[in-house]
Amino acid sequence: MNVYLAELIGTMILIILGDGVVANVVLNKSKGQNSGWIVITTGWGLAVAVAVYAVGWISGAHINPAVTVGLAAIGQFDWGMVPGYIIAQIVGAFLGAVIVWLAYLPHWEATEDPGAKLAVFSTGPAIRNTAANFITEVIGTAVLVGGVLWIGNANNGIGNGLGPLLVGFLVWSIGLSLGGPTGYAINPARDLGPRIAHQLLPIPGKGDSDWAYGWIPVVAPIVGGVIGALFYNIFWP
Amino acid sequence: MNVYLAELIGTMILIILGDGVVANVVLNKSKGQNSGWIVITTGWGLAVAVAVYAVGWISGAHINPAVTVGLAAIGQFDWGMVPGYIIAQIVGAFLGAVIVWLAYLPHWEATEDPGAKLAVFSTGPAIRNTAANFITEVIGTAVLVGGVLWIGNANNGIGNGLGPLLVGFLVWSIGLSLGGPTGYAINPARDLGPRIAHQLLPIPGKGDSDWAYGWIPVVAPIVGGVIGALFYNIFWP
Amino acid sequence: MNVYLAELIGTMILIILGDGVVANVVLNKSKGQNSGWIVITTGWGLAVAVAVYAVGWISGAHINPAVTVGLAAIGQFDWGMVPGYIIAQIVGAFLGAVIVWLAYLPHWEATEDPGAKLAVFSTGPAIRNTAANFITEVIGTAVLVGGVLWIGNANNGIGNGLGPLLVGFLVWSIGLSLGGPTGYAINPARDLGPRIAHQLLPIPGKGDSDWAYGWIPVVAPIVGGVIGALFYNIFWP
Amino acid sequence: MNVYLAELIGTMILIILGDGVVANVVLNKSKGQNSGWIVITTGWGLAVAVAVYAVGWISGAHINPAVTVGLAAIGQFDWGMVPGYIIAQIVGAFLGAVIVWLAYLPHWEATEDPGAKLAVFSTGPAIRNTAANFITEVIGTAVLVGGVLWIGNANNGIGNGLGPLLVGFLVWSIGLSLGGPTGYAINPARDLGPRIAHQLLPIPGKGDSDWAYGWIPVVAPIVGGVIGALFYNIFWP
Repeated sequence: MNVYLAELIGTMILIILGDGVVANVVLNKSKGQNSGWIVITTGWGLAVAVAVYAVGWISGAHINPAVTVGLAAIGQFDWGMVPGYIIAQIVGAFLGAVIVWLAYLPHWEATEDPGAKLAVFSTGPAIRNTAANFITEVIGTAVLVGGVLWIGNANNGIGNGLGPLLVGFLVWSIGLSLGGPTGYAINPARDLGPRIAHQLLPIPGKGDSDWAYGWIPVVAPIVGGVIGALFYNIFWP
Repeated sequence: MNVYLAELIGTMILIILGDGVVANVVLNKSKGQNSGWIVITTGWGLAVAVAVYAVGWISGAHINPAVTVGLAAIGQFDWGMVPGYIIAQIVGAFLGAVIVWLAYLPHWEATEDPGAKLAVFSTGPAIRNTAANFITEVIGTAVLVGGVLWIGNANNGIGNGLGPLLVGFLVWSIGLSLGGPTGYAINPARDLGPRIAHQLLPIPGKGDSDWAYGWIPVVAPIVGGVIGALFYNIFWP
Repeated sequence: MNVYLAELIGTMILIILGDGVVANVVLNKSKGQNSGWIVITTGWGLAVAVAVYAVGWISGAHINPAVTVGLAAIGQFDWGMVPGYIIAQIVGAFLGAVIVWLAYLPHWEATEDPGAKLAVFSTGPAIRNTAANFITEVIGTAVLVGGVLWIGNANNGIGNGLGPLLVGFLVWSIGLSLGGPTGYAINPARDLGPRIAHQLLPIPGKGDSDWAYGWIPVVAPIVGGVIGALFYNIFWP
Repeated sequence: MNVYLAELIGTMILIILGDGVVANVVLNKSKGQNSGWIVITTGWGLAVAVAVYAVGWISGAHINPAVTVGLAAIGQFDWGMVPGYIIAQIVGAFLGAVIVWLAYLPHWEATEDPGAKLAVFSTGPAIRNTAANFITEVIGTAVLVGGVLWIGNANNGIGNGLGPLLVGFLVWSIGLSLGGPTGYAINPARDLGPRIAHQLLPIPGKGDSDWAYGWIPVVAPIVGGVIGALFYNIFWP
């Protein structure tokens, strides 16, 4: 498996399990309906862990353009591979969203609220405010990319296959603590790929795909990822 | 302990703890009644971990015909042992369900809803739709069997007894994310053995055992397990 | 620290954190009031892990007479040390309950229900039924003692300090899955020591200490512990 | 990075994720609003783990004056470095609180209750009672500092990067079990730094910063930390 295919498959797995948990919580008649933020965040955290175990040793399991660009910004990843990584991540996220759509097939018609249906695919703000939403996504992604770097620092001596689980726990933590205002995209591919899927898939009773908001979870995580990586690079030895 | 007995005991432990958590959540007057999806999914995930620690080093702890057939399909398990493994798993699951029935003995009479009683033993769909329910179980089991293979890939270097816990966390993740539409059987023995127990045990006020649905959580996980194993075999080095 | 003091301190820590989580969930005005079964079970599971890290390498951290007697029954512990271990465990549990009483000092008066106050200290049945309650405690403790043995089997190769966490996760699992009918004492010291504390402490508005039930969580776990240890000894190589 | 900067950054990360989870649960319109004690405690536990991974190998990641003073009291830390550590921790906590304020920017105006706004920053008692609140914080911090020492005891053989996660789980446990009466400050910097931030930041509709209570979560954790360290030092070999 080459690294681009690995990023595609890893991001696909991430979205199957990540968008899947949102579907479970927000779609009508689902067995996990209204099971709350602990389910959402545990589900996303474990989704990351499972995806990183899948392809971590092949491509590094960025599965997130903010990680890819952040690492490139501090010289830990080759800029020439960045476009390929990002395209693979977006395509993988799109495919993952299609599989979630399939897994929850009868629940789309059973759900009236078009906002709930979009929420399965992509994030939206609790209070719509461009500057504030942008800042929230920057902060969350800075903690993500900084956290991946400081957890992975060789001095922590993480070995024996514990690393991917800890990255999942980092995302669990970010979701619990910083996910409240915007639903923590913190990953452009995670948001854009499924938003395209929402636009294209024949979902009964869907509303629009909220492209007016859609640029924030694409641009802000890139900014946050670079800030997080630079923060790490400046302060850690 | 020979490998068949190990599969029997491992699957029995899986069902004691797995069906047990459903009993706790759905039966009337239980201390965990209505404690929600986080309890169900954490309980099942840990049930898998405990069962895999029990017999993993003896039989591989398939404790699931979908894993057994999936591994055989890619040449990682001997087809000649498949029937014995599957029979042991179903018998173990049956025995586990009997023990759950005993552990919750006064709660059967205290519970009016026959659907809740069946739900302790076996899965049922949130929205009854043969094709869709089949697809959901295929997807969930493909992630399970693929996930077991990619987590266990030697390049992840999992050691020091962490492996069974991670398999439990994989099932935790699948339950959270893909369990909404069908209750994630993702294991023919997990569903069939306890359904037979439901049919045979003297449970006050029980309804029928829903054999009309019962073939889906038997057949679909086998299909999904093979797809997951082939997916892994094709793409991973 | 000698082994008896270790058992006393370990069981005291267990009860500070274990009875503490029940106090948090059931006492009036507590910040965790009514936070549900996931809080109770996660709290008890982590209580076990923290206590086993405290004294595991000194005394083995039985912190439970059912473990002590179970191990002695299969020749893995010296019968001559059993009485001292059990006395230390009960004294430690008593002291732990006193500390919980102190930590939640203003909440006893704020709570009207005497049943809730007793529940902080000791277990009680959801449906009172001597035979059934006895069986439930036997099953739960058999899984506990069997589980401690099979998780700790050298073939699992658990090292690097993971063992105590896994024992905590085993108790988390048992609570989630088998705790519904009786509140899972699965430990005579955990139930008896705090029940004595409930009897003796000046708790405003307390009711009786339910000694009529109190023998079940003392005797049944011993029976279950022996059964679990024998089950392990018979079937595992 | 020198050790003082490490303590500053570590405590900042702790508060970003720790105060962040409270903001998520208590502020109006947040996606995690009213998601309960399991979210609060899991969020704080993981916040500790992420912060300890950040700077543990640089400064020891005390990120808490009660740990710093407790270790000094038993000769495991140089008294001459104590003032610098504590100042760095308080400054870091202040900065972390400012970042949480930014991350949840539109939610302050959306929230009416001034008590909820203060709760994001600093702890407050469920039942106001100076002696009892003091005792609760002493007990919680004694378990924290004792626990850090006994978990870290070399005989537990924790390696491979598991240590910081276990410290996080210890705090998860303390929150679940002993957090009910006072909201478990168990860390003077965690409470004082954000309380100063609450005082200074332009938060719409904020109330006073409850300095009348504010000395308890500063003084009591120091007392508890010393008690916990001495307890460990006396009893453990």
